[in-house]
Amino acid sequence: MQSLYIGGLDIGGTKMAATIAGAEGPLARVTELTVKSGDARAPGEQGLALLKAACAQAGVDFGAVTTVGVSSCGPFVKQHGLISLVTPNICGGLVSDDKHGDLPNRWQSVPLESVLREQFETVTIENDCVAALTAERAFGAARGIANCAYVTWSTGIGFGLCVDGHLLRGKNGNAGHAGHMLLSELSAAQCGCGNYGDVEALISGRNLETQYGRSAAELFEAARAGDAAARAIATESAKWFGRALYNVTAMLDIAVFIIGGSVWQHHGDWLQPLVMQELETRLPALTAGVTLVRPQLDSYVADIGALHLAMPPEWEDDWRAAQLWRRFDRG
Amino acid sequence: MQSLYIGGLDIGGTKMAATIAGAEGPLARVTELTVKSGDARAPGEQGLALLKAACAQAGVDFGAVTTVGVSSCGPFVKQHGLISLVTPNICGGLVSDDKHGDLPNRWQSVPLESVLREQFETVTIENDCVAALTAERAFGAARGIANCAYVTWSTGIGFGLCVDGHLLRGKNGNAGHAGHMLLSELSAAQCGCGNYGDVEALISGRNLETQYGRSAAELFEAARAGDAAARAIATESAKWFGRALYNVTAMLDIAVFIIGGSVWQHHGDWLQPLVMQELETRLPALTAGVTLVRPQLDSYVADIGALHLAMPPEWEDDWRAAQLWRRFDRG
Repeated sequence: MQSLYIGGLDIGGTKMAATIAGAEGPLARVTELTVKSGDARAPGEQGLALLKAACAQAGVDFGAVTTVGVSSCGPFVKQHGLISLVTPNICGGLVSDDKHGDLPNRWQSVPLESVLREQFETVTIENDCVAALTAERAFGAARGIANCAYVTWSTGIGFGLCVDGHLLRGKNGNAGHAGHMLLSELSAAQCGCGNYGDVEALISGRNLETQYGRSAAELFEAARAGDAAARAIATESAKWFGRALYNVTAMLDIAVFIIGGSVWQHHGDWLQPLVMQELETRLPALTAGVTLVRPQLDSYVADIGALHLAMPPEWEDDWRAAQLWRRFDRG
Repeated sequence: MQSLYIGGLDIGGTKMAATIAGAEGPLARVTELTVKSGDARAPGEQGLALLKAACAQAGVDFGAVTTVGVSSCGPFVKQHGLISLVTPNICGGLVSDDKHGDLPNRWQSVPLESVLREQFETVTIENDCVAALTAERAFGAARGIANCAYVTWSTGIGFGLCVDGHLLRGKNGNAGHAGHMLLSELSAAQCGCGNYGDVEALISGRNLETQYGRSAAELFEAARAGDAAARAIATESAKWFGRALYNVTAMLDIAVFIIGGSVWQHHGDWLQPLVMQELETRLPALTAGVTLVRPQLDSYVADIGALHLAMPPEWEDDWRAAQLWRRFDRG
């Protein structure tokens, strides 16, 4: 019997990565900056080209790969039942000229599933945080936890949600956009989506930089060092993050939050007590026992999330037991 | 073969109702004020007594009923894996003396599932809005809709949630407590749960009465008649409700909200344009096409929700086609 190989595609607003894997683990990975010019089909075609290049590097016949999983930034829309991207930092046609005049296209949407289906029989596309959650559920911190969420606190804020053991997708695959949940009726902080006072507007790395005038990394370093202005902003951001987690808990009765992203990775130890205070002191009937944990797949999470969407279930035990998901040095 | 009969129990903070049904539809219903004194087992035992009385009225052998569905106010906790109620307007031990000194008990929780399991083999307990959503999905406005929510805007605010065709329950069956989602960082309005600025604090019938000094019904009547003070409060409440629906949409990618409860039942026509403006004008990629509809089961929803939790699937087609759920005059 011929060996089976699968593809994984990680599509971000900045970079795109393609990975090829077999039962023995990931075999090759290639990455490029995400294409943002030319025809709206360009990002999908770039994905195909990267998968082809990864196959060449791994010595795998590209034509024999029939299944691909995609972890992508969102939001998504469905066009003729197939997922397209309507991502503000890829689609120049969605943003006003004064805000994102740097995008060299006027795309209203990017056809992704239709382009990939020209090559592959089976294409599974999920929001990047949903894909990350599948990976953490299969191999990492969320194993065996039926009610959990993956949260990234980085340049933006994203959620992947799992309730009663079901990953939540929603009508267009956009479940988990809790970063766009409105929390403040007063804040003048504006999100890339145009709204004021949502979670991203209040605490995304991008917005903290706007508030502080220096990077989010510098902000939290200064706060830890005792700088009063930085500490006020950082403490406020922990409060908002705690309120966001409280709202998700009240709505979905989550048991465990797996929190990743650069802000939490570097400053979660300092932030966690502030966040827990905001979360635990509210309505104990809903919040008792909720825990925050670290992801276990770290920088592998996007690639492995994409691959896991395409993976035959019978591979999972070996990948988990031997940590085959670590096999490929991501360089 | 002996005929099969099932029980349904609707437990509210004020009233409790028991219904007995067969394949031919509901047969009898008895109701009482919810017992709030004596031992903490009292509400569960009242449920058993009411189901027994409903059986007697229907001429059904109580001992032969093995399956019961329960639609109950929450929140829930699990004790030894079985659901107990920690409902502030039933459990006097959960609230401070100055707030709810009228509750004649010091119960910390009410054992429900354990008491009912002493009599019944199969007991399925859901939050009242989750039960309502199962009923609307089976027989009413949510048939065939995979991503939908049932919302009640009444004395309190409750949600039942369904994503990708799965009813959301959560670790303790508390998914859907979106009425406790924090929306305002400024509001001095306090919820029964103790928090300030959550959806219930801002717009529940109870809170609108506190703001306006007269009942929510009088408030909306006066607003429609053009009274400026009433109109300001009513318009503000529509704005908060729209923000709550937006947050649920961003988090869960819901397609349809089925909205019930006395406020919406009487004033939804006036409120809807204001609510839609708050919802639709935000992040079209997430909100495009979201619709608000009326429930179809109306005053039957709690009884039928409870019964549907206990119902053999093979009854559903007949109950739907012949509207057997209407068969029993609720009086």
